Amino acid sequence: MLCLFPRPFCSELSSMTTYADRLHSAIRAKRTPALVGIDPRWDLLPAEIRTRAEQSGGTVYEVRARAFEEFSLRVIQAVADLVPAIKPQAAFFEALGPAGVQTLAHIIAAGRKAGLLVICDAKRGDIGSTAEAYAEAYLAGEDPAAAPFAADALTVNPYMGVDTLQPFVDRANQVQGGLYVLVRTSNPGARDFQDRQTDGETLYQAVALQVEQLAQSSASGADYGSIGAVSGATYPLELAELRKLMPHVPFLVPGYGSQGGRAQDVAAAFDPDGLGGLINNSRGILFGFRKGPLAEEFGESRWEDAVRAATQAMIQDLAQATPAGALQID
Amino acid sequence: MLCLFPRPFCSELSSMTTYADRLHSAIRAKRTPALVGIDPRWDLLPAEIRTRAEQSGGTVYEVRARAFEEFSLRVIQAVADLVPAIKPQAAFFEALGPAGVQTLAHIIAAGRKAGLLVICDAKRGDIGSTAEAYAEAYLAGEDPAAAPFAADALTVNPYMGVDTLQPFVDRANQVQGGLYVLVRTSNPGARDFQDRQTDGETLYQAVALQVEQLAQSSASGADYGSIGAVSGATYPLELAELRKLMPHVPFLVPGYGSQGGRAQDVAAAFDPDGLGGLINNSRGILFGFRKGPLAEEFGESRWEDAVRAATQAMIQDLAQATPAGALQID
Repeated sequence: MLCLFPRPFCSELSSMTTYADRLHSAIRAKRTPALVGIDPRWDLLPAEIRTRAEQSGGTVYEVRARAFEEFSLRVIQAVADLVPAIKPQAAFFEALGPAGVQTLAHIIAAGRKAGLLVICDAKRGDIGSTAEAYAEAYLAGEDPAAAPFAADALTVNPYMGVDTLQPFVDRANQVQGGLYVLVRTSNPGARDFQDRQTDGETLYQAVALQVEQLAQSSASGADYGSIGAVSGATYPLELAELRKLMPHVPFLVPGYGSQGGRAQDVAAAFDPDGLGGLINNSRGILFGFRKGPLAEEFGESRWEDAVRAATQAMIQDLAQATPAGALQID
Repeated sequence: MLCLFPRPFCSELSSMTTYADRLHSAIRAKRTPALVGIDPRWDLLPAEIRTRAEQSGGTVYEVRARAFEEFSLRVIQAVADLVPAIKPQAAFFEALGPAGVQTLAHIIAAGRKAGLLVICDAKRGDIGSTAEAYAEAYLAGEDPAAAPFAADALTVNPYMGVDTLQPFVDRANQVQGGLYVLVRTSNPGARDFQDRQTDGETLYQAVALQVEQLAQSSASGADYGSIGAVSGATYPLELAELRKLMPHVPFLVPGYGSQGGRAQDVAAAFDPDGLGGLINNSRGILFGFRKGPLAEEFGESRWEDAVRAATQAMIQDLAQATPAGALQID
């Protein structure tokens, strides 16, 4: 929201629009909790984009960053009217060095300009002033000018302890941004440490209770706070259990689609109104045009139509098999 | 090491110089395990650097990135003959956006050109192909051209599980790079999750045992592997215990100096030859000129001399109170 008042006054006004408020407004407006992950992979990009980038010259990193930028911007255009939010994965941009990181900043800005919430998936975590620096880097919250990578929300890693989450929480509260703390991830190895029994509860349950507290303290009376949790679609039982443990926590659910999570597996993330969760899909949406029925229907030349079709199929799937269907009823 | 042979042949040759080999050669050559952390803070930079950067214009991020670059390069020059390695903290550069990240890449390259090992402190962690992308971004190992942020080693976070460490380990082995896995961190909140009792051991002990296995599998007969561990100076008992649990693991020890860790607190990191550990100091070296005896002796105008003096004092301190003293005997 553009603010025409001087900053101090503006920041008071903006205290009325927490991340949780904006998140749920966006989900209601688009009538779906589908989240599009922006995970560009050079080998999977449409050939025309790769060729054009190569023809413009530069280092291999510059060429690929240019291709990632065109691809990501066109994905954003293709899905902007369909979904509430996108989730760029920082790693794929960082792998291209400074040129890729510049592209990440552009993608985040472009997502916001297209009216989407942007969750930067960077899984940061560190102590004290270092955590503050990461939060300043990635958490812009309401005001796109408040951070160089101007995301609405950021994913963070809790291993180092609650005092290392606090600077992120403080920053999120200050700028009306959001956080998603890793609780129970979607990979097979999530069991190694997160599932360990510790003092009568698993480690991920212990983390969950801390996240619930942080969410409550940021909730200021709203149903949900702005401190969220990551809980994988590939572990539906844990997801259901975590929803009960964290009633004030918005969920970010990875693992739907390519990783094997189905719509019914993520149903427990939602409240009866279809709120409380965002379900991510990256490869299945971005690269659906590469194989299977979408490849047959659209082919590479109409890859943006395939992106839209994959997004619409996911929206339908979630509406049919989860409480997110309630969002589609007038 | 510059390789004049074609790549495939070169990579066979390079298998003779693991990160652990290069690390310990560097420690022996400089006769100290002191590690200089590059954590630039705008407010603490010498005024002449800030003024010069401001005069060159640009956005606030560009101005600060330029100042960080001059400051960091001059720190590297000041300490290059004294220590084996530097550790840039990614967060402070990322907080300045793409301009800062470009500076981070320059600093890493400059550290290597100055003959120093460079450990990028970015505490990354993610699943599968995303972890691969982070490893490709930051782990150059022996060949500075092998990654855009061409560090010798990288810090990583184990919360997501051993399968999320494996892509980093594979990449480290491939390029002869190193890793430092967070095991027991130096902050007070390290207790929250890392100290929890789980199946008869603490979480950090469980992580330690996994790291020891990874180090052994990468050690190929050498005393130490190239997979290391982070264990804070502020918890000397845990550090001593972890040294026993992880005999093949090189340690990176934060928390000396400003965070309260003393030389005797880190003694247990070392074997009798003074190998096995790097002890980090960031603020105490970079900004010693701001207060206390170094401020009186050198003042801001001779801040590089203060950086050298603080480094030499740390080297002396470690030599007197720990087995690192063995490195100084011919």
